[in-house]
Amino acid sequence: MGTKKLELRPVSEMSTSKDSDTNYTAANVKAPRMAGLLLRCFTWMMESDIFGLIFRLKLKKDNLITKVFQQTEYHEPPMFQPHFPIEEVEESGVIQLEQNRSPPDHVARALECLYPLPSRNAIGDRNRHPFLHWKIRDYAEAFVSGRITPYLVAERFLSAVEDSCNRSPNMCFFIAYNEEDILRQASESTARHAKGKPLSVLDGVPIAVKDEIDCFPYLTTGGTKWMQKVRKVKDDAACIKRLRACGALLVGKTNMHELGQGTTGINPHYGCLPFLEAVRNPYDKDRCAGGSSGGSAAAVAAGLCPAALGVDGGGSVRMPAALCGVVGLKGTYGRVSSAGVLPLNWTLGSVGILAASVEDTLIMYTAIQGHLAQDWIASFPPAANLPILKDFEDGDLSKSKIISSIKIAKYSKWFDDSDKSVRTTCYSALNVLQQEYGVKVLEVTIPELEEMRLAHFITIGSEISASIGIDYDRMGIHDSGADIRVCFALYGSFSTRELLSAQRMRFRQMHYHMEIFKTADLIVTPTTAATAPVCSADGLKYGELNYVYGAKLMQYQIAGNFLGLPAISVPIGYDENGLPVGLQLIGRPWSEATLLHLASAIELLMAPNCTKPPEVVYDLLI
Amino acid sequence: MGTKKLELRPVSEMSTSKDSDTNYTAANVKAPRMAGLLLRCFTWMMESDIFGLIFRLKLKKDNLITKVFQQTEYHEPPMFQPHFPIEEVEESGVIQLEQNRSPPDHVARALECLYPLPSRNAIGDRNRHPFLHWKIRDYAEAFVSGRITPYLVAERFLSAVEDSCNRSPNMCFFIAYNEEDILRQASESTARHAKGKPLSVLDGVPIAVKDEIDCFPYLTTGGTKWMQKVRKVKDDAACIKRLRACGALLVGKTNMHELGQGTTGINPHYGCLPFLEAVRNPYDKDRCAGGSSGGSAAAVAAGLCPAALGVDGGGSVRMPAALCGVVGLKGTYGRVSSAGVLPLNWTLGSVGILAASVEDTLIMYTAIQGHLAQDWIASFPPAANLPILKDFEDGDLSKSKIISSIKIAKYSKWFDDSDKSVRTTCYSALNVLQQEYGVKVLEVTIPELEEMRLAHFITIGSEISASIGIDYDRMGIHDSGADIRVCFALYGSFSTRELLSAQRMRFRQMHYHMEIFKTADLIVTPTTAATAPVCSADGLKYGELNYVYGAKLMQYQIAGNFLGLPAISVPIGYDENGLPVGLQLIGRPWSEATLLHLASAIELLMAPNCTKPPEVVYDLLI
Repeated sequence: MGTKKLELRPVSEMSTSKDSDTNYTAANVKAPRMAGLLLRCFTWMMESDIFGLIFRLKLKKDNLITKVFQQTEYHEPPMFQPHFPIEEVEESGVIQLEQNRSPPDHVARALECLYPLPSRNAIGDRNRHPFLHWKIRDYAEAFVSGRITPYLVAERFLSAVEDSCNRSPNMCFFIAYNEEDILRQASESTARHAKGKPLSVLDGVPIAVKDEIDCFPYLTTGGTKWMQKVRKVKDDAACIKRLRACGALLVGKTNMHELGQGTTGINPHYGCLPFLEAVRNPYDKDRCAGGSSGGSAAAVAAGLCPAALGVDGGGSVRMPAALCGVVGLKGTYGRVSSAGVLPLNWTLGSVGILAASVEDTLIMYTAIQGHLAQDWIASFPPAANLPILKDFEDGDLSKSKIISSIKIAKYSKWFDDSDKSVRTTCYSALNVLQQEYGVKVLEVTIPELEEMRLAHFITIGSEISASIGIDYDRMGIHDSGADIRVCFALYGSFSTRELLSAQRMRFRQMHYHMEIFKTADLIVTPTTAATAPVCSADGLKYGELNYVYGAKLMQYQIAGNFLGLPAISVPIGYDENGLPVGLQLIGRPWSEATLLHLASAIELLMAPNCTKPPEVVYDLLI
Repeated sequence: MGTKKLELRPVSEMSTSKDSDTNYTAANVKAPRMAGLLLRCFTWMMESDIFGLIFRLKLKKDNLITKVFQQTEYHEPPMFQPHFPIEEVEESGVIQLEQNRSPPDHVARALECLYPLPSRNAIGDRNRHPFLHWKIRDYAEAFVSGRITPYLVAERFLSAVEDSCNRSPNMCFFIAYNEEDILRQASESTARHAKGKPLSVLDGVPIAVKDEIDCFPYLTTGGTKWMQKVRKVKDDAACIKRLRACGALLVGKTNMHELGQGTTGINPHYGCLPFLEAVRNPYDKDRCAGGSSGGSAAAVAAGLCPAALGVDGGGSVRMPAALCGVVGLKGTYGRVSSAGVLPLNWTLGSVGILAASVEDTLIMYTAIQGHLAQDWIASFPPAANLPILKDFEDGDLSKSKIISSIKIAKYSKWFDDSDKSVRTTCYSALNVLQQEYGVKVLEVTIPELEEMRLAHFITIGSEISASIGIDYDRMGIHDSGADIRVCFALYGSFSTRELLSAQRMRFRQMHYHMEIFKTADLIVTPTTAATAPVCSADGLKYGELNYVYGAKLMQYQIAGNFLGLPAISVPIGYDENGLPVGLQLIGRPWSEATLLHLASAIELLMAPNCTKPPEVVYDLLI
């Protein structure tokens, strides 16, 4: 190894224009799909001292890690965290939240941004509204009018979850829900409504929480069987405190891919043992909901709550959102406090929102953004800009000057490297935006995407290994799915040179993306290159390792995490199997308002294409 | 390893008060001094695959690295870089530099802060002034009055350096000085002075540059024999551009410990081969100047220039400054651009100043601080505060309200863990400050100092290994001193978990220091726990590995680098062998003005104790 030396041109000599001389390299994953006995053998070998060493070296070499991060010379310094200077973001058509106001005050400001709730009663004209789901404002209207109480919603929620568990297969949406706690919260909310004093529009609205976020009275399992034994929950996470201050009805902890280290949502511990189980996709119960925030996405899609919290360290909010036909937002790194979130990594993940509509995404994001107390170490992020969605009143986008002024960057070779029906659906959305409303699409090049994928992999692996590795070595290794055990065997094999080179790749990628943002407001991609995967029988029985399919799902996720950029997935229709397809918008730092603005426009435009109800869906308001 | 788990209490439960229940642990270095044949054998073993693996594991275990960074659980996130929020620092008696002015403008502002140059002619009353050296203003006065020209100074410089090389032993101050280039610069400066248009007070003043900083027309060797073959110098470093803009006479590249990875300044490549050679200490030519900026410190001490540039990644400016009886300043991380400095690390080092007086340190620091162009990735550091040193006019400190209001923190167990004569000298300086001028000294505790030392070691090793490791593996290993080869063998052995745990220790230490800075303005220590080491015969012949003595020199350095805090070393007298002793002040982020203020007071107070001329000293103005 010592004698080879490769070199990357300095970023100053690289171009992100459409005429860039950089080639597009599709994800180059050299690892066969494995399940069943083969996977068991492979796990054993990966964990053994001698075979493991050889296998790990071979895997790293085959997948270009050795070449790109061990033998290549960089001209750029490492960028350790995607921290951005705190500065005013110039965005059109926004209002600015004031810092240090209470979460209900923030939420009230968000409501001012929305167009009036269309007149409809709870049994009314459902098809007019996208995605067939009740919105937070529908719940609030029903509670305020006294037509229904939060307590009744809670009871309906409990029987709906029970039903979802008793199906065949078990839908596996939740890891835990505490009937007593839910009914207590619901009574309190009902009492507040009875007095005409709800805390906010969220008061009494059911909200689910990924089991990676601390939320009393629940344990935080992270989808494992051991985490809760070594890490006690002492307090609500910061984002949960904010939701409680708004009166949200916290309905339990959703299922997730174990430790967030997978894209399928198959979890061996929380389902119908002894068989492994997956969070099932409400659009097709034989398919996965995706991961890792699969339970949150599926719960929203199934109508159990209008919104839920997830955590996104490698697309874990946006992927299941796309696969389940809901909206998924991951904000700018640092905008939402990560206090009380399982520290699976430090520089990649953010708490994100899964919701059935863009307006609910806005309300939820407004509620949870910001930090509870200023920390000397973290620069306080600017309070969020909120898009003025009433710009779209009556759904007439042609009136919106904001939308028509937006410039979208697209790297076609990358965009097109997706399954045909995904690509076709995404192009139809893009064409409508472009041709009818004047949105400009600029062709760009993003160099070294495959290198970024590997750099993200090295980083997330090294960070989780440093964060929970001691306990994993002591307990997790005896009690984890085969895919997780293979991951950890590989994660421990990265060298400090590989880790630091990966951070130098982060610097390069940040440069490319910032170059693109000089001419475009955001970057558009399909959210995933494929739709929801089948829960295959052998995979369910002994676990599954399918890095190739995983790479298809993760293909467009990395910049959002590795560079800390805000990104949103919006449902735009279905593939030929009737499975949901999502379109992703990736924004410049702190530009969530622009993302939500355009996402809202896309939601309105594509509503006529998004009228298929999920196979499994509940209605808590009727 | 997998079954052990230790835990550190969360920082919130730790105390930095004098009554803290934390124990002081002296540096626990388990590595015998090695030189000669023993060192050669050890190097061979450390580099071998099997023995090396065993040795490295044993070294890491003996030195607590395995225990503290592999088996210990932290509650804090990593702090990857010592970045501080950009905020106004409240300091008394300072003026604020405006951003984006030219270096000569900045220097002019610095001059306004100084008390008037005492009336003296160049042959006059030298003893009145501390450290017996001409100051930058003395040079300027001599040039402006026409009594002497920069050209004549350049000629005297050249013959002085030649003399220093022809001594026995060779003093080894410089790695390279280019007669033609020096005389050309001097002619140009002389012409400017003849026209009455010097660029600044620095015009024509000889300034030496550590061979780690790019400076045309020289190569940058970093003290190696191979770096210059793989890394071409394309431009002056940012700090050099700023000095050129001020008209400084750049007189060549000073000698240094190879790759900055040592404290002695012994360098096998630049001296009188075939024997290894050390930068000799002007106060005792049988002793080392210290490292790694030994050449810069020694050149200043020997009167070859009033100031020089060094780079400080682990005390490399402050240690040789103390050992050679000059002032050494390392500023806040990020205040001076590191563009064009050999990237031996990314999160620890800063360009620093070595000078014969505090006022020259101020002038030089003012000239080089700031960045040449704003970078999207780096938050622009605030322009430096300058202390108003004319506050001390006539040397009457009792008139200074600023000095009497300063509160100094001292951790006595740590402070006292130094050689007796060092300690005694430091206490005498402290007592004068305290008793006669009302400076308050607060007793504090800094927990986990030994852990911080190891964390810094892991960090600097991992970073240099990632930065130049590819070329080191290809070329350096065949052409480096034994101490460097042992370092690199060890550096490559750190795991990503160890590296990331070290960054979590950085978070903890930043917390402790910020707690202390809530009640104190700065922390005082001896600069080094011992004075200049002897250049032992066996060490010179085959190289030397003396981590125990190295740890004594580095004992008080780490916070300045690992936490990016500004720190200054001021000469305060001599030990029983007549070797210089330095006192160190460590400040809160961005508080260089307070440091320089107090350093200036100490300089004035201790001047009567600092009148011993070096054994080797030149006078370029008489």
